[in-house]
Amino acid sequence: MRIGAPGAEKPVARIDDATYVDLSDVVRDVDEAFLGSGGLDRIRPVVAERAAASRVSRFAGERIGAPIARPHQILCIGLNYRDHAAETGQAVPAEPILFTKSPNTLIGPDDDVRIPRGSTKTDWEVELGVVIGRRTSYLDAVEDARDAIAGYCVVNDVSERAFQMERGGQWTKGKSAETFNPAGPWLVTPDEIDDVLDLDMWLDVNGVRRQTGNTRTMVFDPWFVVHHLSQFMVLEPGDLINTGTPPGVGMGLSPQVWLQPGDVVELGITGLGRQRQRVLAPR
Amino acid sequence: MRIGAPGAEKPVARIDDATYVDLSDVVRDVDEAFLGSGGLDRIRPVVAERAAASRVSRFAGERIGAPIARPHQILCIGLNYRDHAAETGQAVPAEPILFTKSPNTLIGPDDDVRIPRGSTKTDWEVELGVVIGRRTSYLDAVEDARDAIAGYCVVNDVSERAFQMERGGQWTKGKSAETFNPAGPWLVTPDEIDDVLDLDMWLDVNGVRRQTGNTRTMVFDPWFVVHHLSQFMVLEPGDLINTGTPPGVGMGLSPQVWLQPGDVVELGITGLGRQRQRVLAPR
Repeated sequence: MRIGAPGAEKPVARIDDATYVDLSDVVRDVDEAFLGSGGLDRIRPVVAERAAASRVSRFAGERIGAPIARPHQILCIGLNYRDHAAETGQAVPAEPILFTKSPNTLIGPDDDVRIPRGSTKTDWEVELGVVIGRRTSYLDAVEDARDAIAGYCVVNDVSERAFQMERGGQWTKGKSAETFNPAGPWLVTPDEIDDVLDLDMWLDVNGVRRQTGNTRTMVFDPWFVVHHLSQFMVLEPGDLINTGTPPGVGMGLSPQVWLQPGDVVELGITGLGRQRQRVLAPR
Repeated sequence: MRIGAPGAEKPVARIDDATYVDLSDVVRDVDEAFLGSGGLDRIRPVVAERAAASRVSRFAGERIGAPIARPHQILCIGLNYRDHAAETGQAVPAEPILFTKSPNTLIGPDDDVRIPRGSTKTDWEVELGVVIGRRTSYLDAVEDARDAIAGYCVVNDVSERAFQMERGGQWTKGKSAETFNPAGPWLVTPDEIDDVLDLDMWLDVNGVRRQTGNTRTMVFDPWFVVHHLSQFMVLEPGDLINTGTPPGVGMGLSPQVWLQPGDVVELGITGLGRQRQRVLAPR
């Protein structure tokens, strides 16, 4: 985790809901340099040793930041859940649809989400986030992608549907407004997850359950996606991949529902923690 | 300029073809922190003083890097020349079409361009690059964009047309292969250019003139583009915007022509310098 004020988060390892091991003396940040140099493996024994010696701190209501520093890229996969493709009336894609978000959209899991100026259709998307762990290019086999993934996190791929769909054909304009990528609370390493392809996902707006899904309905699993993307670009350590959303987005409801100032969005994925965002009016 | 080995470039100010002022003692890199803190204004008097005192060095065949460090984003505008839209058989867009390239595609102006694995349609695009000079969001007026631009450079927006057009609908896959964004040789500040909307552009492949254009046929000028993008995202200092290409890309020829290993691409824009890339086979 990264906790503290925006831009001044300190890296810590969560032990349980109440306690953590402070890593700020050994880790500058959870960024490209750290992840790309085997940082996660390097801190494992440090965390174990400090936890065993009860060198732990107690959470004291600190703000939680995104679990990674601003990445080189935020890559997103579109229509990657069979049941979500159906709700939008679109065919399941033949291969992963790739679009991008501005990296500076990344915020903490409980930070406020701000509706952009001129927005009429701000929408939510609970997603499984995949964080790249090493420089990755031209993977030979899908199986090789296992070594390229540092871990997983919850993300809310906030979207402005009019900007996405009605402003020139490409989707980036509707995905890149400030605050549009809450992530966290935790970066969970693969060994901490029993089965990435059997995780329940949910999202509530003002206490009303809007999204209910499970990663088992993903069309292209995380390893397929990483292998696929590595054929087109070089993935950098710390790159974040939002792997698509299950059914229940506002665009898919009848009538459609869009986020309004004052709304509260809560979401989570089994084992990866939960998020809570207040929705603010445009600035 | 930035000269030296990849990843170890030093910042310099070009005085003329033969000489430069070394700035490596006062500038760490031409990056987000430098540009966002008024760095260009800060070094002007330094350059003037050193040049006046003949504290200049002579170019000695050093490699030239991209004139900016790896940016937060590379944003690209599609179909932004009236005559290029016509050659591709597409309508002039009603507003700027936005797509993105991986930031790690950035290379120096004379570095090699490598054809990606599986490519059948690697293409060229001479373009005017716009570098953002300050954090920019929700500009009120197009005129305000003048203060947001640090400078201009030549870019080659190398593209793989099959990856761009035939792999899922969004364009990023065809724009993001390693080495796909030669930039430079110079970052030219706006005061050094008489009229950004009257610059000749050209590109040769193996000595055959393929692109001939002028920025006066741009559909959306740089200030319009920066103002427009600032409504959808926060632009960071150092962000690079490739503003579209004039006619003569390989896709637009009849029969179509694609880059092959061993080809030499040369391109330039009046007052912004010239580039020369050798084309390499896939690795």
